[in-house]
Amino acid sequence: MSFIDFSADRCILNNPTILPLAAGFLWNPHMMIHMTARGFATAQFMQPEPAKYARAQIMEAKHFMLPEQGTYAHHPGRFFYVKDRETGSLFSAPYEPVRAPVEGFAFEVTPTDIRWRVDRPGLRVEITLALPVDDACELWEVTLINSGARPRNISFYPAFPLGLMSWMNQSATYDAALGGIVANCVTPYQKIEDYFKNQSLKDKVCLLSEQTPLAFETRQARFEGEGGLHKPDAIMAEQMADGVALYENPIAALQFDHELNKGERVTHRFLFGPAFDDAEIMRLKATYLSEAGFARARVAYAAYMSAGVKSINIESSDPHLDSFVNAWLPRQVYYHGDTNRLSTDPQTRNFLQDAMGSVYVKPETARKTLLKALSQQHANGSMPDGIRMYDGAELKYINQVPHTDHSVWLALFLEAYLDETDDYAVLDTLVTDGETQTALPVRERISAANQWLIQAVDHRGLNFIDQGDWNDPMNMVGWKGKGVSGWLSLATAHSLRLWSQILERDGKDGAEYAEAAQRFNNAMNTHLWDGDWYGRGITDDDVKFGVKADIEGRIFLNPQSFALMSGAADADKQKRMVAAIEDQMETPYGVEMITPAYTHMREDVGRLTQKFPGVAENGSVYNHAAIFYIYSLYQVNESEKAFELLRKMLTGPNDEDYLRRGQLPVFVPNYYRGAHRQHPEASGRSSHLFNTGTASWLYRSVIEGLFGLKGSREGLRIAPQLPASWPSARVTRHFRGATFEIDITRGKPGLSVDGQVLAGDAITDIVAGKTYKVLVTI
Amino acid sequence: MSFIDFSADRCILNNPTILPLAAGFLWNPHMMIHMTARGFATAQFMQPEPAKYARAQIMEAKHFMLPEQGTYAHHPGRFFYVKDRETGSLFSAPYEPVRAPVEGFAFEVTPTDIRWRVDRPGLRVEITLALPVDDACELWEVTLINSGARPRNISFYPAFPLGLMSWMNQSATYDAALGGIVANCVTPYQKIEDYFKNQSLKDKVCLLSEQTPLAFETRQARFEGEGGLHKPDAIMAEQMADGVALYENPIAALQFDHELNKGERVTHRFLFGPAFDDAEIMRLKATYLSEAGFARARVAYAAYMSAGVKSINIESSDPHLDSFVNAWLPRQVYYHGDTNRLSTDPQTRNFLQDAMGSVYVKPETARKTLLKALSQQHANGSMPDGIRMYDGAELKYINQVPHTDHSVWLALFLEAYLDETDDYAVLDTLVTDGETQTALPVRERISAANQWLIQAVDHRGLNFIDQGDWNDPMNMVGWKGKGVSGWLSLATAHSLRLWSQILERDGKDGAEYAEAAQRFNNAMNTHLWDGDWYGRGITDDDVKFGVKADIEGRIFLNPQSFALMSGAADADKQKRMVAAIEDQMETPYGVEMITPAYTHMREDVGRLTQKFPGVAENGSVYNHAAIFYIYSLYQVNESEKAFELLRKMLTGPNDEDYLRRGQLPVFVPNYYRGAHRQHPEASGRSSHLFNTGTASWLYRSVIEGLFGLKGSREGLRIAPQLPASWPSARVTRHFRGATFEIDITRGKPGLSVDGQVLAGDAITDIVAGKTYKVLVTI
Repeated sequence: MSFIDFSADRCILNNPTILPLAAGFLWNPHMMIHMTARGFATAQFMQPEPAKYARAQIMEAKHFMLPEQGTYAHHPGRFFYVKDRETGSLFSAPYEPVRAPVEGFAFEVTPTDIRWRVDRPGLRVEITLALPVDDACELWEVTLINSGARPRNISFYPAFPLGLMSWMNQSATYDAALGGIVANCVTPYQKIEDYFKNQSLKDKVCLLSEQTPLAFETRQARFEGEGGLHKPDAIMAEQMADGVALYENPIAALQFDHELNKGERVTHRFLFGPAFDDAEIMRLKATYLSEAGFARARVAYAAYMSAGVKSINIESSDPHLDSFVNAWLPRQVYYHGDTNRLSTDPQTRNFLQDAMGSVYVKPETARKTLLKALSQQHANGSMPDGIRMYDGAELKYINQVPHTDHSVWLALFLEAYLDETDDYAVLDTLVTDGETQTALPVRERISAANQWLIQAVDHRGLNFIDQGDWNDPMNMVGWKGKGVSGWLSLATAHSLRLWSQILERDGKDGAEYAEAAQRFNNAMNTHLWDGDWYGRGITDDDVKFGVKADIEGRIFLNPQSFALMSGAADADKQKRMVAAIEDQMETPYGVEMITPAYTHMREDVGRLTQKFPGVAENGSVYNHAAIFYIYSLYQVNESEKAFELLRKMLTGPNDEDYLRRGQLPVFVPNYYRGAHRQHPEASGRSSHLFNTGTASWLYRSVIEGLFGLKGSREGLRIAPQLPASWPSARVTRHFRGATFEIDITRGKPGLSVDGQVLAGDAITDIVAGKTYKVLVTI
Repeated sequence: MSFIDFSADRCILNNPTILPLAAGFLWNPHMMIHMTARGFATAQFMQPEPAKYARAQIMEAKHFMLPEQGTYAHHPGRFFYVKDRETGSLFSAPYEPVRAPVEGFAFEVTPTDIRWRVDRPGLRVEITLALPVDDACELWEVTLINSGARPRNISFYPAFPLGLMSWMNQSATYDAALGGIVANCVTPYQKIEDYFKNQSLKDKVCLLSEQTPLAFETRQARFEGEGGLHKPDAIMAEQMADGVALYENPIAALQFDHELNKGERVTHRFLFGPAFDDAEIMRLKATYLSEAGFARARVAYAAYMSAGVKSINIESSDPHLDSFVNAWLPRQVYYHGDTNRLSTDPQTRNFLQDAMGSVYVKPETARKTLLKALSQQHANGSMPDGIRMYDGAELKYINQVPHTDHSVWLALFLEAYLDETDDYAVLDTLVTDGETQTALPVRERISAANQWLIQAVDHRGLNFIDQGDWNDPMNMVGWKGKGVSGWLSLATAHSLRLWSQILERDGKDGAEYAEAAQRFNNAMNTHLWDGDWYGRGITDDDVKFGVKADIEGRIFLNPQSFALMSGAADADKQKRMVAAIEDQMETPYGVEMITPAYTHMREDVGRLTQKFPGVAENGSVYNHAAIFYIYSLYQVNESEKAFELLRKMLTGPNDEDYLRRGQLPVFVPNYYRGAHRQHPEASGRSSHLFNTGTASWLYRSVIEGLFGLKGSREGLRIAPQLPASWPSARVTRHFRGATFEIDITRGKPGLSVDGQVLAGDAITDIVAGKTYKVLVTI
């Protein structure tokens, strides 16, 4: 039995109870919405900091998005109640909060909208949610169809709880002139300096209806009454009381009565979202709230989505992988690069890695990101913890904890960018930084960042870790200024090696950086090679950790991946590391980040923050770490292992895999629960979070690793690493304006282009606009 | 039909649906719990900042306690489900979340515990919640009684949701050795400086059971399943699955199966609360979790409550008032003085006014409070915005907004303290402040505070308002340094007059302060008397506000009250003010603070923060302001009006009054919704918040105003101002160790003590330990 239909243009879940957290997400440059199959929603818009327009019933604290924590009866949602006026029977579409059994159910996520089809006895409800490009608002279309044999007399109620808008003041009522419910609140400011900032906030929320409702209710408590959300008093009544909310949590609920003959249908359109004032509401209504307006918004949104060009289109032996790589993965990559995860202070490492994904879908965005990041470089060459997206943006949350790794990501980004675009001119572009107001070429700035890494070392030549580096949940290993990071030392070696290569390709002297890279690799082999893998670091108190002697936190994935990339590990070491990872870290759901997961603080090793201790992130299959391992396996031609793990990351094509993980295959989440050997029963579940640097590295691994279609100064290199189980594959690769239609088959290795056999592995002298027919035999 | 039974030792609500927010509160020095009749709970404990042990399902932001905002399906609660194993029928006691209809219901709040009696067909559930004195934990006793004719086969399930304990890590399971469910979490720290602070936090929560359960469930999502909280899958099943929560929101749910014959009963005892480690849990269990342990805790708690001595016991023509004044009001006063509202940085004005209440119930607390406050006086004589209760406590929320009124409350406090105790020696006590490390006598410090007020004036001689002063929701009237406060100028005059009197009574020269008081009164009469009332202030831009010309914010209550006290208003002005207030500000629920309520920001007047704009606090019947008006009316012998308003504040003895306000009469709330002339339908409802300076001034108004039993240097002055409707009254007054049994009757004015007629109104030469029989004719 199949619960999920998955293809490149849609993913359908046909049972609301199977995956309670199954969700799709939509975004535009102003907002995003995470919408579950059952009707719960988490939506944010930017003004300029992320804000909510439909809130929880209590004041919510801000934290990173963590949808894994699930929903609850009063979670914000978009509910459409339908009551049979003759029998009194009640259900809500899509499913929450009534949770009435359905005869048929389809939750359909497409790249451009989210749809539902809900079949109840004799009645079908079709729902579509779409976003426009230019505004932060939701466009809802709901069609009720009498699919039974007898005429039906029904009441229909869209009901969108607005939650606690403000503890200071909140209100809502129906505004006939605007044609909908308008809720208002006062931002709870208290300090004078905030007042002037807050004056421009959108404190209103509206639910506009194309049709005039029969009645309305805006008081959440009266709406529910004793019946509760699952059987609201206001809906069980003959007619809503036209209640006006004054200083109480509001809801936007409307009532429409319909008589539908057999086969008859009626369509409603609603607009829901934040607004600054009545004039803006009026504009939103005029722009969108009609059949024609919805259609125009749809066309514009499709155009916006197609601006994220795809680098690759594949036909392999794995149709699930084909759909994911051809449509969903580049969509996720595009989302990251285009929205910066709806953050105003993206972590520098995320900002650069998300931009690395843009290299393949929107290279002009990638270039801008590099220049923006460098404009905030410190005078000493190091990169800041976060990039401020507007004047006055503050470094928040984790960006207030100093991390030492931000400078290593520049060269990693640049390698991808230059290979794809050959835009070496960017290295001569002048960038002025805010700290010193000095204009320097990009080349000098990247060198300065790498020089900073070179000098930030202890007596062993290993990089200080200070309060933390990337991804491993420790912030107290080196806070006294002595502790060092094995992973960071290897990442520095990798960065230096890449930067040396880039300089050489640009006709400059890169030897200094190549030599420095070697020094870091040597220091690691001297001090942190533990016999079968690399240790993670050495604490302020001179204790090595991530080594065999440890009972918890014995082996860390990141040092191994970066040792494969940096050239630190020779063939023997490579073999030992891969074997140790297979033995200790692989799970049915991928490779764990740390094994065994820490269950308590080790005071001698450094205290672990953020994700410590437990079964989730600390020992999780943290996909951003896992994808580096996969990428690094392709670097050393471990293609079978690489593909096996890549396939695990995407979950299988079979429904049981999704059931176990509780998610739809429309995006790769930031982690699956791990600590598999400690808590097998809790491992495997998805975090449901689509914000992750995994996407860009996964796309890069598929393009440059699995299919081996990597750019270079000379042109396009072709060196596929298909798994043995694939007899062949076809790929279309878009590269520097040209199109390459590539057939990969098994046989005597060889490469021909447009019928002509090539000696090397590169197609050179590429002509933009041209289509190349390429035959590869492997 | 009466829904509420109210007396001095209990208040009973007999229908769970009538007042959905009806609640009692219990506290000890470590914690407080606000418990609704229906089973929802809000509880905090100190470690040392206020913390929760049962949380919401999502991360909650901190704000002031605002229980008016109500509850929702997943609000934290203490639920006891009962399932009939034969019929499958389900209910939950007290009422949430199943909300099954009851045959009988009693929610009983007493000064020392909270009880329920829930009658379902053939089954009675009796529940008692008590707190110990020395620990932050809840003691629950639940008795199931077969009240029907046939034997019953039931399952019983205490189910306490624990909510989102930490986004970092949380878990829960049953621990057989400890005899209960223990949940654990990791405090989401990130910064090194927080780590060392957070190490001592109580991150565990336990639900211990005296009996060993049959089964348990600790996973909130599995507990609910598709049935939801109102029909949980785990409870509809034959037996709970012994589920262990790992990184998911936990619940503490236990199952016990019982067969009860006709008339048979079974009693369970549970302990619920936070803990540091297993050793602490073991200690809590050993100390409390038995019939004897519960009984010992009950005795100790009764002793703790009786340490709050009552100053007065009355027998009037108003039994409701008698109960409230004799038991509930001093309980609320005691709560404030003993816990500082569970805050670690009480606002200085609240700290001193709450201590003013302690003058009548625990004078040694009042004295300590004064010395503590003065130890944080600034070098320039002014008082800080909040008092730090421990080293490292931070000024938070509103205490970060500078207010100019904190220095006026010292003399107001001192008048009450000295009148009650005659402890003039306190004025010679040396206090060292943290800022200058100088030891100064209290007398000099109070003078310095008043001198600071004298000099903080503009060219008119009115006090600057800066970013705000007491209680009126404005923080931008004078932020540019020019705007002045009419209320504060009158409060300063009152403070100076009181201080002058205190100095004179102490044999010192107070003339300087009396003259300064007169200057402030004169300045007010010159610049802010508006014809029928005093204006509220003058903005930075020289605009008077709170005057007749204003459409909103036309009249403010506080300036009028303080003009009555300060002596600014002559008899003609007094009459005009009282008439204007009666005409514009009185409502069926009391006197509003501002009329008409602001509905939008007036940029020329100053921007109103905290409570602006709207129907709640801004135009509310803000009881703390209303009680000052009542107190001031007694000062000028407007006793009929004073009593009329005092009675309104306490709500009537009739159930409809409570229905309208939605609360039980066990405490006076900080406000009732106002803006009565703008939104009559929304006015009158209680805020449900028991933290309010109203309590201490209300107690003082009853003691010194209504019953006219005020202390002085000479002894006890006796000048009752009973309402005309009372033919007589009896009072017992405890004063300086003596007891006064006072009979007040109507007739030719006179006073006799122990049969001896007195010439004046004062009983002098009081002998501690003695009981005086006093006859007063008025």
